[in-house]
Amino acid sequence: MRIDCISTISEALGQQMAGRTVIVIDALRATSTIAAALVSGASGVIPVETVAQARRIAEEGDLLAGERHCEKIPGFHLGNSPYEFSRDAVSGKRIVLTTTNGTRGIQKASQAATVLAGSFMNAAACAAAAIRLQRDVTLLCCGTRDVFALEDGLCAGLIVRELQSASKRPPELGDFAAAMAAAYSQCEAGLEEALLHSDSGIRLSSLGYKEDVTLCAGVNRFDAVPCLYGDEMKPF
Amino acid sequence: MRIDCISTISEALGQQMAGRTVIVIDALRATSTIAAALVSGASGVIPVETVAQARRIAEEGDLLAGERHCEKIPGFHLGNSPYEFSRDAVSGKRIVLTTTNGTRGIQKASQAATVLAGSFMNAAACAAAAIRLQRDVTLLCCGTRDVFALEDGLCAGLIVRELQSASKRPPELGDFAAAMAAAYSQCEAGLEEALLHSDSGIRLSSLGYKEDVTLCAGVNRFDAVPCLYGDEMKPF
Repeated sequence: MRIDCISTISEALGQQMAGRTVIVIDALRATSTIAAALVSGASGVIPVETVAQARRIAEEGDLLAGERHCEKIPGFHLGNSPYEFSRDAVSGKRIVLTTTNGTRGIQKASQAATVLAGSFMNAAACAAAAIRLQRDVTLLCCGTRDVFALEDGLCAGLIVRELQSASKRPPELGDFAAAMAAAYSQCEAGLEEALLHSDSGIRLSSLGYKEDVTLCAGVNRFDAVPCLYGDEMKPF
Repeated sequence: MRIDCISTISEALGQQMAGRTVIVIDALRATSTIAAALVSGASGVIPVETVAQARRIAEEGDLLAGERHCEKIPGFHLGNSPYEFSRDAVSGKRIVLTTTNGTRGIQKASQAATVLAGSFMNAAACAAAAIRLQRDVTLLCCGTRDVFALEDGLCAGLIVRELQSASKRPPELGDFAAAMAAAYSQCEAGLEEALLHSDSGIRLSSLGYKEDVTLCAGVNRFDAVPCLYGDEMKPF
């Protein structure tokens, strides 16, 4: 198995993803939130790029969710905080989600054989799914508005480590994947602090979402692996 | 002081460099070689993008140096191995150098207030120079053909660390600079091994340049800081 890592959505080329398992990472917060939604019993999550698309696609009974500038979109049922996606709020419901970076990343991965949503919260489960799929893996770090985001890179590094420990033969690592694995190993013991000091962590904390950062830093809390089937993410 | 890091030349935007100190890093091997040339008494190094430019610019007495696909260019006096830039070979001479990535990176940094050439071999000296210049710093990792190269990222991480330890007030780090500093700290004890396992390290070793990798991994061997004055790199 070969593992490559892409630093931002704008760096992603179709050829780096075609025929591979692509794990899309927007750890603060979209891909953590999608995992939380499935854990809470949502029937599925449809990621879309724009607010207009979200409104158009949502059918009666669906929940509209998402953020712009980290805040809930006016008129939507839910924002992008995993805390909002409780069993009471989402169980049995289909969710249409639009966020600034994460949902764009999922769309960008359309040439992949399989698209999974990765986060600190489901890293080991994602790695196990990727190993079952027996394809080369591309970790797509969404970043923030086309700039590298530390939390996504560290999460990619964690997933590389999980893939290494779950693989029978050591996977071959691209340079960026190797760098992220090293960065994660260095930050592991102080992960929450590292995330709180990242650009996204600082921004979310200033907007009152510090607890989201703490929650999203919870490594391997979830077994759920969101996987794209058609246009909808459902459990793998 | 703010420190940002750019992962590849293709990611570099003028605005990230304008008015700043830009430290260009192509640790295997161009920026290591430029430092070696100045240490050996070369009067200066003119980095150019193409072989044709190099031939046009070189005047009588200048040395033509450079590589394509890691190998010396036919008819040139020198390749791109720091071992070739001995005192006997280069003392008192001006060198016109063209390489695949490093010289492109130097050209790309044209909007900088000051351009320095950084490597593992002169990291502390580069950091000291940047602190004297009292500007924000952008570390420009050249990468290999627009793909991130581990050696450049780790070298950027080392320079971040040197800037941190030499600064009176802790510098503010962009997310990518923070990730590279963490990756370097993790790899520090096994740096040579990490470089030998990188894509560039594997390629150079297979072409018979393993000793170049070992030499270039020698942290803080040199006090020389190549600095761009006009179109020529001379000691800072």
